[in-house]
Amino acid sequence: MCQSVFRNKRDTQVTFSLINRTDSVPLAKLIDEGELREQLDHIRSIRLSRGESTWLRGNTFYGKRQMFRPDFMEWFENLQLPPYHLERVGDQYELTFEGKWPEVMLWEIPALAVLMELRGRAVLHDMGRFELQVLYARAMTRVWEKVEHLRKEPGLRIADFGTRRRHSFLWQDWCVQAMIEGLGERFTGTSNCLIAKNRDLEAIGTNAHEMPMVYAALAETDEDLARAPYDVLADWHEEHEGNLRMILPDTYGTAGFLERAPDWLTQWTGIRIDSGDPAEGAETAIRWWQERGEDPREKLIIFSDGLDEQKILQLYHQFAGRVRVSFGWGTLLTNDFRGLAPDDRLAPFSLVCKAVSAEGRPTVKLSDNPNKAMGPQTEIDRYKRVFGVGQQQAFEVVV
Amino acid sequence: MCQSVFRNKRDTQVTFSLINRTDSVPLAKLIDEGELREQLDHIRSIRLSRGESTWLRGNTFYGKRQMFRPDFMEWFENLQLPPYHLERVGDQYELTFEGKWPEVMLWEIPALAVLMELRGRAVLHDMGRFELQVLYARAMTRVWEKVEHLRKEPGLRIADFGTRRRHSFLWQDWCVQAMIEGLGERFTGTSNCLIAKNRDLEAIGTNAHEMPMVYAALAETDEDLARAPYDVLADWHEEHEGNLRMILPDTYGTAGFLERAPDWLTQWTGIRIDSGDPAEGAETAIRWWQERGEDPREKLIIFSDGLDEQKILQLYHQFAGRVRVSFGWGTLLTNDFRGLAPDDRLAPFSLVCKAVSAEGRPTVKLSDNPNKAMGPQTEIDRYKRVFGVGQQQAFEVVV
Repeated sequence: MCQSVFRNKRDTQVTFSLINRTDSVPLAKLIDEGELREQLDHIRSIRLSRGESTWLRGNTFYGKRQMFRPDFMEWFENLQLPPYHLERVGDQYELTFEGKWPEVMLWEIPALAVLMELRGRAVLHDMGRFELQVLYARAMTRVWEKVEHLRKEPGLRIADFGTRRRHSFLWQDWCVQAMIEGLGERFTGTSNCLIAKNRDLEAIGTNAHEMPMVYAALAETDEDLARAPYDVLADWHEEHEGNLRMILPDTYGTAGFLERAPDWLTQWTGIRIDSGDPAEGAETAIRWWQERGEDPREKLIIFSDGLDEQKILQLYHQFAGRVRVSFGWGTLLTNDFRGLAPDDRLAPFSLVCKAVSAEGRPTVKLSDNPNKAMGPQTEIDRYKRVFGVGQQQAFEVVV
Repeated sequence: MCQSVFRNKRDTQVTFSLINRTDSVPLAKLIDEGELREQLDHIRSIRLSRGESTWLRGNTFYGKRQMFRPDFMEWFENLQLPPYHLERVGDQYELTFEGKWPEVMLWEIPALAVLMELRGRAVLHDMGRFELQVLYARAMTRVWEKVEHLRKEPGLRIADFGTRRRHSFLWQDWCVQAMIEGLGERFTGTSNCLIAKNRDLEAIGTNAHEMPMVYAALAETDEDLARAPYDVLADWHEEHEGNLRMILPDTYGTAGFLERAPDWLTQWTGIRIDSGDPAEGAETAIRWWQERGEDPREKLIIFSDGLDEQKILQLYHQFAGRVRVSFGWGTLLTNDFRGLAPDDRLAPFSLVCKAVSAEGRPTVKLSDNPNKAMGPQTEIDRYKRVFGVGQQQAFEVVV
């Protein structure tokens, strides 16, 4: 995704901002500001190691050797993440990043992971040595029991998408090992490149909401705006093929997006369902392929929103055979500490880091779940009009 | 107990023998004979370390400094355990120890612990690195959940009696730490002297069935036999006071034992209930004290048979306030791996090491549970007649 941005929108000025959708977690009370700054400063000090660079340059991604172009890699090797702006406001932190899009976008994952891990450490700090041991024993048991449920389905395909909201790095690494050991072939890889490299796994992932959000913010007219989500994928189409040609259709409403989609998009490999009712989203996708004369059984649906093992199995049973199904399992894989600490202080929560403006214009997300919408209300109204989004059903956002 | 035997029956020749009451566990198929011999030879090679000896000589047991007499300690420091006789018979091992009682009796605990641990290692050997980690995570979680149930009762008194059938030494040590951390004052100590020494706990314990069994086997006449269980306690009475004055009344039937008990025994601190229905045993004890004019609220009952946390809580709720209650928690504290390994191959089982003869005469145990009885049938019949034991209710022996 960064390479695509680097190639197509290298100089676009963006602002990314931390958004804690779970008000009840008072991050600024839990995490010491000095400690947070130390971590963020450390992130700015790190560079790709030689081994990491070699791996990125030489590794095969989705069957394609040298996916990363030499000019991108050279830029990446010399990259220092841009400065951050951190301010405490009440019990929350305002944390923003400004600069060129390909640089700023790389803040999202480490910023979120650091906040999640520092919050966890703050809670762990109050626990006894023994409570800690039992805490992890319970968490391990829980992960393993999920894996044991999932391993009963030989046809499952699941990847780790849990980097940004992981409990900690070591914990994510442990969860990945549990998936390797327990799921074998059913475990298709991780979106964490370091873990993929260290454990010889597939590094996988696809495009995210920030792409249409920034493209849309840059649109001058309503006509440009309506075309923006397709422009993203046209740029992407040039860059990638195969499993990377995944449509993320929900940024401004899945139904309208598919309805107005150009025909070349029906050739794409599949669709990622990331908000709203996942079964309904999948039915919409299947109908769309059928209407456009495609065989859904050759298409791929990736579910990636708020998954846990029960929902994975339920969706798998509902759609296996009708369409190829895969799962990007995030927070409840790498951070399911629900109910394991006093007052549930280790429960995962909904922290995101989003593009909030591009070239000074606010970004907008509508999503298939109004609880995930963002942007100024006047802009939301305009986007709803342009994209023909009517009444939406709201779903609670847990993680 | 060893000091009492050393003092009173130093030269009595005894035979102790391993008895696997759980036929379904084929020890000789699971445990390599060479490995077992290596462990048993190792046991014969070890001596009290200087630190251990200092601790035994100087430590305070039950508030009494220098419980162990210098002549006993000198003997103990120079002790080498006597040879063992090991033979494979079918899928079981015959393992016997012959020699002087104070020497042979010390084989029981290490022999059992080694067999339990080697059996566990044999099962663990077939498991993957990850399965092992999750196995222990589950077992830790289970122990801790038991502790969490028990900690809700501030008045509980529980000790670790789980050495002989522990899953392993390190595991017992972990369980003890869980008890320390979770139960605080409610955890009264451990019968494992090494762990008591290392973790600065009370080393606790009392007399066992081998005492009346050997004394009874040595009896020349039926009259001597009837008196033997009281002779044991008369010898014990001289040696100990306070919490060590615990009656173990079930060897030849609790009811008859108490009925015929001399008056000085009613002064003793309490009674240990180790077979039969524990609530019934406790009621029998309470009635006995009342009939002999003692206040049961000043007496101590120690439950020690097949306990788990539910049974502990149930007995506690039934008897707290009516009598002082304490628990000696054994196998299901230190070896509850039930259901955690494939085919339940780590489940604890009922392995004992018992005095089977003294000076060439067979020993007999009747117990309050006929499933725990042992000895030749003619001798059992004689003992039943002498001790007036009639119909007994049978209880399944799990551990």
